[in-house]
Amino acid sequence: MIDKSRRVTGPAGPRDTRRHNLSLVLREVVAAEASSRANLAEATGLTKATVSSLVSELIEAGLLVEGGQDTAGRIGRPGLMLSLNGDSVAGIGLEINVDYLAVCVLDLLGRVRHRRVVRTDNRLSPPDEVINAVARLGRQAIGKAEQQGMLPGGVTVAVPGLVELGEGTLLTAPNLGWRRMPLAAILAERMRRPAPKARIEHQPRVRIENEANLGALGELWEGRGRAWGDFCHISGEIGVGLGIVMGGALLRGSGGLAGEFGHIQVDRDGPRCPCGSLGCLERLVGQEALLATAGIDAELATSIGDPKDGGAAALVARARAGDGRTLAALAEAGDVLGAACGTLVNLLNPATIVLGGIFAPLAPWILEPFRDGLRRCSLATRWQAPRVEVSELGPEAAVRGAASSALRDILADPYLMPRGSKEVS
Amino acid sequence: MIDKSRRVTGPAGPRDTRRHNLSLVLREVVAAEASSRANLAEATGLTKATVSSLVSELIEAGLLVEGGQDTAGRIGRPGLMLSLNGDSVAGIGLEINVDYLAVCVLDLLGRVRHRRVVRTDNRLSPPDEVINAVARLGRQAIGKAEQQGMLPGGVTVAVPGLVELGEGTLLTAPNLGWRRMPLAAILAERMRRPAPKARIEHQPRVRIENEANLGALGELWEGRGRAWGDFCHISGEIGVGLGIVMGGALLRGSGGLAGEFGHIQVDRDGPRCPCGSLGCLERLVGQEALLATAGIDAELATSIGDPKDGGAAALVARARAGDGRTLAALAEAGDVLGAACGTLVNLLNPATIVLGGIFAPLAPWILEPFRDGLRRCSLATRWQAPRVEVSELGPEAAVRGAASSALRDILADPYLMPRGSKEVS
Repeated sequence: MIDKSRRVTGPAGPRDTRRHNLSLVLREVVAAEASSRANLAEATGLTKATVSSLVSELIEAGLLVEGGQDTAGRIGRPGLMLSLNGDSVAGIGLEINVDYLAVCVLDLLGRVRHRRVVRTDNRLSPPDEVINAVARLGRQAIGKAEQQGMLPGGVTVAVPGLVELGEGTLLTAPNLGWRRMPLAAILAERMRRPAPKARIEHQPRVRIENEANLGALGELWEGRGRAWGDFCHISGEIGVGLGIVMGGALLRGSGGLAGEFGHIQVDRDGPRCPCGSLGCLERLVGQEALLATAGIDAELATSIGDPKDGGAAALVARARAGDGRTLAALAEAGDVLGAACGTLVNLLNPATIVLGGIFAPLAPWILEPFRDGLRRCSLATRWQAPRVEVSELGPEAAVRGAASSALRDILADPYLMPRGSKEVS
Repeated sequence: MIDKSRRVTGPAGPRDTRRHNLSLVLREVVAAEASSRANLAEATGLTKATVSSLVSELIEAGLLVEGGQDTAGRIGRPGLMLSLNGDSVAGIGLEINVDYLAVCVLDLLGRVRHRRVVRTDNRLSPPDEVINAVARLGRQAIGKAEQQGMLPGGVTVAVPGLVELGEGTLLTAPNLGWRRMPLAAILAERMRRPAPKARIEHQPRVRIENEANLGALGELWEGRGRAWGDFCHISGEIGVGLGIVMGGALLRGSGGLAGEFGHIQVDRDGPRCPCGSLGCLERLVGQEALLATAGIDAELATSIGDPKDGGAAALVARARAGDGRTLAALAEAGDVLGAACGTLVNLLNPATIVLGGIFAPLAPWILEPFRDGLRRCSLATRWQAPRVEVSELGPEAAVRGAASSALRDILADPYLMPRGSKEVS
């Protein structure tokens, strides 16, 4: 569970101490939403002089802004309130999924500054073209951030497959048919803008991460996840993913490959999966299985319904219209998914299960059979029923989590702040 | 994940600091196996004077002994080496399983001072009688410990079911048909020895814990578990349990009910389980399923084979004799268990899977099909194959873990040391 990308490799020096304390102050401001220097000193245990110096550096770097007064009725001279600077740095989230590409630009106050979804079947194009398309979306997003006066702080790319811990390597994306690819490095290269166009020298760092993990982190950081305790977030797309959050952190497994929920075997005699196994969950309840069972042509599926429902748009439209075959397909899928979540509950006993991705817009039709399947197939449910929540971010959770993750990297290490206007020194 | 039984409920005072530091010193001695006062001061960051005072108290309490010299070539007067006292306090482990009761007495050096297994079908007796029988085993064990000059430091009872976090309540043991029972309190009451017989006033604390969790902890503390990284320990008995160890600690889930591996559904059309569901894993690969598929009569099963193989004795004997039906049953079970562990690997990506309980003596016949099933049903295995280990403790892991757990409680809180000869003050 060691994230190699963050491992300290040499001896620690004063710069590491400074980095640590800058991050401590920042995270305290995040936790308190806004805070005065005096409160920050109290909360962090640092001296007021040290806090003042750290705060100056963070203001200088564009991470904090000062304004407003601490009116919490404390004794003494009221301190000026510090909060995160929402106008300085942008987190860029990108997503490569099976049937769409997405991008999201987020600022430090959690405001979405730019978003775009391009529906396209990425299985039909060579990986090279898909990567070029996503790099183009990334460059556009950086341009949008700069137009709004912000510096691109980092890029995180959500991918529908296994990602090697800390290496930036995609091991396999079964539904795309992609295998072993140094995707972070390739994307960094292709997003590099020619010198005259770049307003700054800084080239943002590019990381890749499993989309289901980012979906869960999106819920935790940008959605309602903090209220859920330990939770399992199910991302329904063409594949079905899982992000497990325990104690406020992602459970990654020993090699970073935990959460491959879509490939648990739910029917030994079930259909063949591109992963090589039989009867994988996503072959029964993933988007394509749902469309097929509902009798909706894949071509047609992209042209009807509300785009905000993502790949579920056609299913939602048909279900709303009361189409019997669609309703039956959703009821059956809800039951199978609930039973599979019974396995999750048996193994992990989470406080909350979250229906995310396309399962969010489909919740009105799958929720009841889901609860039945869950109850039937998990022992603990009779004693401690997990809370079942429907994601509000839905299919957008992963790309939102990706953008947020790029910003969190800077909060954890303020020296990653881009050197555009002012430099953190 | 808060263990209520250990939650500090009031403000902390000097006694809590002392408790913490006593434990710190003890755990450092455990980690180093033996250490001098000077090394303890260095390792803990406490002053030499404080360490000396803590060590005196721990020697007084019977937890440490002094002897031998630190010969690691350090400069200055060689310090006398301190190590755990193996003759002062005993951890009592008890186990209530479906077809046996077991007891184990362990000292602080990990030596087994007493062990006993009673094979008996606990489903055929009222719970009250079973509890009386196990209380009798517990009282005998305390007697055995006292005969060897040791004080009973605590009793941990392994049970085949769901245990409420920190409450000492068994919620359900499906294979026994037991439901909601304040088992720790009942056993404490029934193990209370009449005043004249008790050499000491102290009545050891009684805790209950899921047997699969204790099996995993037994491997971690008394077996080879420290070399395994994050691991999943499968306990095969009549039920099939799971203990998940991540980062050196048990993953308990939000309500303490994680690890119900035996009740994950592996066949939607499978046999009915006493838990109420269909096709639970333990109905296909648990001890009774194996005996039935191998065509071995349950009555006969208890009378043939080597008792150290526990409930697998008859299966091992038949397999050794080359009985075709037994070999086929084991091969099939190995494959199904491997496929189910594929689900574990997909969800949790552990470094190691451990075959424990009756699967340990059965390993020669199930291991190959197990590996096949695992490979077939887990996506990550093709990239990072988990290590597969066979438990050396086998069916004894849970009761050993129970005894060890009682001792670990004292290492974590030396004030729990029984007040027999000398008192920790």
